[in-house]
Amino acid sequence: MTDDSPLHALTASAASARLAAGTLTSEALTRACLERIAARDGDLKAFAYLDPDRAIRIARELDKEPRRSPLHGVPVAVKDMIDTADMPTAYNSPLFDGHRPSLDAACVAVLRAAGAVLIGKTETTEFAAAGRDAPTGNPHDLSRTSGGSSAGSAAAVGDAQVPLALGTQTGGSTIRPASFCGAYALKPSWSTVSREGAKFYSVSLDTVGWYARSVADLDLMADLFGLPGDPAPVAGPAGLRIAVCRSPEWESTEAPSRDALMDAAARLRDAGAVVDELTLPPRFDGLTAAHKVILHSEGRTAFLPLARTFGDRLHDDFRSRVENREGFSADDLIAAYDLAALCRVAFDGIARSYDAVLTPSAPGEAPVGRRPGNPVMNQIWTLLHVPCVNVPAFTGPNRMPVGVTLAGPRLSDRRLLAVAAALAPVLDRSAA
Amino acid sequence: MTDDSPLHALTASAASARLAAGTLTSEALTRACLERIAARDGDLKAFAYLDPDRAIRIARELDKEPRRSPLHGVPVAVKDMIDTADMPTAYNSPLFDGHRPSLDAACVAVLRAAGAVLIGKTETTEFAAAGRDAPTGNPHDLSRTSGGSSAGSAAAVGDAQVPLALGTQTGGSTIRPASFCGAYALKPSWSTVSREGAKFYSVSLDTVGWYARSVADLDLMADLFGLPGDPAPVAGPAGLRIAVCRSPEWESTEAPSRDALMDAAARLRDAGAVVDELTLPPRFDGLTAAHKVILHSEGRTAFLPLARTFGDRLHDDFRSRVENREGFSADDLIAAYDLAALCRVAFDGIARSYDAVLTPSAPGEAPVGRRPGNPVMNQIWTLLHVPCVNVPAFTGPNRMPVGVTLAGPRLSDRRLLAVAAALAPVLDRSAA
Repeated sequence: MTDDSPLHALTASAASARLAAGTLTSEALTRACLERIAARDGDLKAFAYLDPDRAIRIARELDKEPRRSPLHGVPVAVKDMIDTADMPTAYNSPLFDGHRPSLDAACVAVLRAAGAVLIGKTETTEFAAAGRDAPTGNPHDLSRTSGGSSAGSAAAVGDAQVPLALGTQTGGSTIRPASFCGAYALKPSWSTVSREGAKFYSVSLDTVGWYARSVADLDLMADLFGLPGDPAPVAGPAGLRIAVCRSPEWESTEAPSRDALMDAAARLRDAGAVVDELTLPPRFDGLTAAHKVILHSEGRTAFLPLARTFGDRLHDDFRSRVENREGFSADDLIAAYDLAALCRVAFDGIARSYDAVLTPSAPGEAPVGRRPGNPVMNQIWTLLHVPCVNVPAFTGPNRMPVGVTLAGPRLSDRRLLAVAAALAPVLDRSAA
Repeated sequence: MTDDSPLHALTASAASARLAAGTLTSEALTRACLERIAARDGDLKAFAYLDPDRAIRIARELDKEPRRSPLHGVPVAVKDMIDTADMPTAYNSPLFDGHRPSLDAACVAVLRAAGAVLIGKTETTEFAAAGRDAPTGNPHDLSRTSGGSSAGSAAAVGDAQVPLALGTQTGGSTIRPASFCGAYALKPSWSTVSREGAKFYSVSLDTVGWYARSVADLDLMADLFGLPGDPAPVAGPAGLRIAVCRSPEWESTEAPSRDALMDAAARLRDAGAVVDELTLPPRFDGLTAAHKVILHSEGRTAFLPLARTFGDRLHDDFRSRVENREGFSADDLIAAYDLAALCRVAFDGIARSYDAVLTPSAPGEAPVGRRPGNPVMNQIWTLLHVPCVNVPAFTGPNRMPVGVTLAGPRLSDRRLLAVAAALAPVLDRSAA
């Protein structure tokens, strides 16, 4: 997207520059986004809640105020399992229809204080976990899924309805929808963005992240949230050391993701990057199973109050967790925690030898239907607590986007974004 | 406390038996607690919010309903940094005066669904972290602190105002006030009780726990929350293997805590337990420093939204975290995470050779004043994620209670409580 784009398709950075220069108002930008949403969202169904008058009123107020941050006046959509004090938050659960939180979630409070226009709430898998699927289609083919659980946020950004949107990831809920929808996304290092006020699934895994249409926009948000890592620009791709990691779950990939990874590696090599193959140590093979043990065991804790409060009215997927139908033991959970901890140390050691680790973002193109898709390419990285960036890199045989993931060591988020900014012009053909 | 106690001083187990037998109503029990509070709390100041009419109304309704659990009709107090949908939640912060959450915190929802009478909100250190101290005195000497941050919950249970109360621990906020107030307390294994809806400080450390006046009552709550570990009764103390651990922070202990530990060890030995000295491996010496790095670094994340929203109106203690005035780096945080992970594995291996690890609960008696006291005897165990039980064991030179901690391997909570039940008659002179 360039500065010549229609207003609704401006990146946040481009819009921010115009807002700062006084050549664009937040009201005009917000109206352009609302018009795009009105034109497209009846079919796409990215938004769970939208009150255009409210959004315009907020934008107009912000236009009168001194600028608080680079995001002042910029519309941001919020996944509807993240609490908002001035919009309903239903978690896509019939049990919370019309629920009105009394406080903003922590991540929303940061955006509100920065002067962002919190434009509306986006569809999610129920409680960002299981149960009901989001009704959202894929902006590139409405018969296909936008992925889950951050279905609406990925679709809204991929469809240029908004420049930025908040998501969360516990398995693959931020990065996989980004791959499916052709959006950029950051899943930050675990613990670096407060997850207070986002619905709980797994305290060890749940991570707030965001979608954008450029690496620069991901970094605008990373700066606002004070993410760790060196933000200095990185020259490249020439000379950067990239590790291509097929991942221990390579057998789950389909041809489009395999082709995307190999194509991305070839393009980086052609551009002068030093590209190595990385095979993770054998113990990493257990991480996907460990992720499931932690997810279900901590999910048992998280959903217990809902099961006790709502009984059979709670979707069976959640009662299954609470009843521990998989039969995971305390020893299973300890083994999973400890394997993850050991692999975190090992991965940091490996990843520090490279500028980025390149790996698939999803098994392939977005499937037909509305199921969220398989998180198998993402769970390992979520469990490792490392930052991951999705870069739209490839178009599959069905003309659907296929992304690649750039990952780095824990707490290197700003550095990883700087590397991603250097690589994106080569990886993302639409940006080139 | 025996079954002959006045109603307000009944344990939850004793009250529950009478409620089940129909010889006691929840209304009578609740009124007895409210009368005790009315008589004592003007000076003690354990409660931040109390509406007697509301509590009686709820108790009366519960008396008409079928019993939902052993806690049906039993009063439970809630630390005022844990959200309640029908009572204000102010976190002892002037910024949240009169704040009304729209939902119960997860732990409150479990109690409400079980039919507990959520009787009122108890005083806390601001955001259970720093800033303003709780105004609460110690029930054994009003000139002294009840400890923090769970000041009011420990004092209310220690003063026999309520049989049970919820607290939280990030450093020493559950166990240390229990030691100061002569209450039993459980800090469960990390991740086993949902902390959703309790104010955030440190996502790796924050743990919901509770106070009671017997081990059986701690276990009643542990059963309700589905805590892990084998709940089967344990015979003893004869034959039980107990490791006396002076802790790497032994230099911070004062004579009363040293005497309490040695006296407890001697009594257990006299009762036929096998008591060994345990010195933790040298790497454990770094855990207190690692705890501080994690606390401050994750506190930076947790308090960022408040700092951005309230600016200078937020207490400087929290702005200090957000500004990282201690200057902790990302590498410091990673080193702290990884040391903790390695020590968790090591401690489980050590602790599995024993039935319990016995260690101090606080440096000594409750100090004069209202400061929360030093958490140095608790931080290591919080960081190790292991369950800890405070047992009132000793009376210091100022006639103040001094507790000892029983700790076990991660996720052994019910087993640790069973061991504590076997040891308490020897350790707790008031129960003997």
